[in-house]
Amino acid sequence: MVERNADVAKMGRNYLFHEIAKRKKALLEKEPGTRLINLGIGDTTEPIPPSVVEAMREAASRLGSKKTYTGYGETHGKWLLREKISEVIYNSKVSPDEIFISDGAKCDVGRMQLLFSRNVPVALQDPVYPAYMGASVLSGKTGGAQDGGSYEGIHYLPCTPENGFTPDVTTLPPGTLLYLCSPNNPTGTVLTRDQLTRLVHFARENRCFLLFDSAYAAFIQSEELPRSIYEIEGAQEVAIETSSFSKRIGFTGVRLGWSVVPHKLTFADGSSVWKDWSTLTSTLFNEASNIAQAGGIAALEKEGLASQRKLIAFYLENARLLREALSPLPCYGGEHAPFLWLPLRSKSSWETFETLLEKAKIVTTPGVGFGPSGEGFIRISAFASRSDIHKASTLLQHILLQKADVEVFKNREQQRT
Amino acid sequence: MVERNADVAKMGRNYLFHEIAKRKKALLEKEPGTRLINLGIGDTTEPIPPSVVEAMREAASRLGSKKTYTGYGETHGKWLLREKISEVIYNSKVSPDEIFISDGAKCDVGRMQLLFSRNVPVALQDPVYPAYMGASVLSGKTGGAQDGGSYEGIHYLPCTPENGFTPDVTTLPPGTLLYLCSPNNPTGTVLTRDQLTRLVHFARENRCFLLFDSAYAAFIQSEELPRSIYEIEGAQEVAIETSSFSKRIGFTGVRLGWSVVPHKLTFADGSSVWKDWSTLTSTLFNEASNIAQAGGIAALEKEGLASQRKLIAFYLENARLLREALSPLPCYGGEHAPFLWLPLRSKSSWETFETLLEKAKIVTTPGVGFGPSGEGFIRISAFASRSDIHKASTLLQHILLQKADVEVFKNREQQRT
Repeated sequence: MVERNADVAKMGRNYLFHEIAKRKKALLEKEPGTRLINLGIGDTTEPIPPSVVEAMREAASRLGSKKTYTGYGETHGKWLLREKISEVIYNSKVSPDEIFISDGAKCDVGRMQLLFSRNVPVALQDPVYPAYMGASVLSGKTGGAQDGGSYEGIHYLPCTPENGFTPDVTTLPPGTLLYLCSPNNPTGTVLTRDQLTRLVHFARENRCFLLFDSAYAAFIQSEELPRSIYEIEGAQEVAIETSSFSKRIGFTGVRLGWSVVPHKLTFADGSSVWKDWSTLTSTLFNEASNIAQAGGIAALEKEGLASQRKLIAFYLENARLLREALSPLPCYGGEHAPFLWLPLRSKSSWETFETLLEKAKIVTTPGVGFGPSGEGFIRISAFASRSDIHKASTLLQHILLQKADVEVFKNREQQRT
Repeated sequence: MVERNADVAKMGRNYLFHEIAKRKKALLEKEPGTRLINLGIGDTTEPIPPSVVEAMREAASRLGSKKTYTGYGETHGKWLLREKISEVIYNSKVSPDEIFISDGAKCDVGRMQLLFSRNVPVALQDPVYPAYMGASVLSGKTGGAQDGGSYEGIHYLPCTPENGFTPDVTTLPPGTLLYLCSPNNPTGTVLTRDQLTRLVHFARENRCFLLFDSAYAAFIQSEELPRSIYEIEGAQEVAIETSSFSKRIGFTGVRLGWSVVPHKLTFADGSSVWKDWSTLTSTLFNEASNIAQAGGIAALEKEGLASQRKLIAFYLENARLLREALSPLPCYGGEHAPFLWLPLRSKSSWETFETLLEKAKIVTTPGVGFGPSGEGFIRISAFASRSDIHKASTLLQHILLQKADVEVFKNREQQRT
């Protein structure tokens, strides 16, 4: 007699990376002992730097001594970590008080939807990281699933080579929640300062909110490209930013992130978003692990930051090698992001996923898993060992770079320009 | 123009422990340098045992080496940890596949409400841990806040000395979600096997679900008292259990817990609760920290379990000392739980909270913070150092054990019996 939440029932398909894991498992059962090259899920492969590991070991030791033991932490996270993030990541443009420590961006994306009325329209870059859609569905902001995995009621804003991967927001209703992910997962493209300025301007004019995911900001190599939405004048009145230590320092399994909710942000009724976020997180969450937070503090100290730069450089060199190998094909991303976004000869990205898995034992991510406009692409992750990148480069060349394909792509590109 | 979630607006007051923290802070600002004795929030004070600390240090080290580094973990938590919990805690009565690792019971309580339709009625033991109410309000299952901090639409089931702290469920509508916390926070009382059997029977007859919180189960000292709802025949068709490493091994800041969702549990439409929980947690959560999980595994090994027994014995001895000091007064709990539940001469528990804070510098928790029937009581936590317990015992005796009070209580007790 206990009624199911109809919103959960709408989640027709499994979460993308869960589905990929299932297919990997099926192959390994069919061909036991096969070694797969994993360029699928964007999961870090390089070890966590020594100063950060040591900080976490020390944090564990402190918990083992009567004098230094601590239990529940500070509400919204360690103040020292919040201060560090404010200084190092935001150049003090947001205050520590506006920074809320989380157990990762994905978890905060889920909680964050509870800030908003079920009537608030949601808009997504298409393709984009599927957790935004999942959180919108589960919080009752959409209709049912449609063919192709999209949801009724969500505004999908195509981001394709044709429009330079910039969402066209002109048709969005006022009061929309627009998710922006830059550097983008999966396309690896970055919104320029001009593009982002226009989006902030639009949000201010149309009283929309921007939910800006900067989980990959540390990969940006140019000072010209904004690493945070708060680099844009006026963003504090319209934007929440969510970010993470996962990709910058290898914390995908350690779990640590943060969200910025500026004091200046207000709902339609004039009430404070910060206050509601404080209520929500105090009620539904209980801080990130104190050991992870100690690691986060070390990651933002001088030695940690130097190690981080090396880690990022390593993954970006992986991306460069993959780009080079595939160079006769048009290929997006990979310069300021750990992802390459590759157009396919066949339109079915799950088919290409299967081909690469079966023939080359390479796991990729089918583009359609990121939204309808992702069909016809695959995402290739640069999170891998150097030797896997070399092997994968050769195999991908062999399978994807057949002469005929290169011609087809060249023709397509010429039509575009 | 972006609309606020009206359910968040209903959360009129701050989360209880947040409010207490504010009052503590106010006192410390007024009287700087004051050393407070904290018997308020149920926060562990003893260090984490060596074998568990060492396991976490090693886990951190493994993340620092290329050969042993791991990123994202296994969906729903490390299989080895799920196996250990199945064996050690549940005597294999639930399968590892039915155990989902979390970052703590509070966080799972929050996510769990999303399983159910907004129309599902919610019933709470009164008084009880406030997170259940918070999660129910935030997921749209209640009306607005009423005087005294209760919410319209929630069925508050008084658990008082008069009814032996057992909820009367006879008036609940079919299809209700009934939260049960045993050993109970805040009263420290435990539902007996008979009482729990009757509740399971009721749930089966009336197709209700029981959300059973066993976070304090490790404190139960008698084999006669059930440590898990699954010790009761037929519970797997009607109950979810949520639990935690926080109190059993000092993990309040490390963050690790689990929930059990049996395969046999189905919604009104016959669909699987397990499946929806799998979807929800895959979409909105991303595993507990791998370092915390390594600690959890060690906690369930032989050495860890021996240390756990010592920790529990230490806190229960604290509780015994407090009970002894207050012995002329009726006092509940503290035998199979780290909390004492003390009736007050004045009805206002916030007033007594303030008196104890001002005069004795002791932080307690006002009973009314746990629900309307908590008024007239305070909760005293036994999580403290032995020396603080001795000091607090003397101070509490001095303030609470005035001769007149004892007489009043004796008369009340006589009227009861």
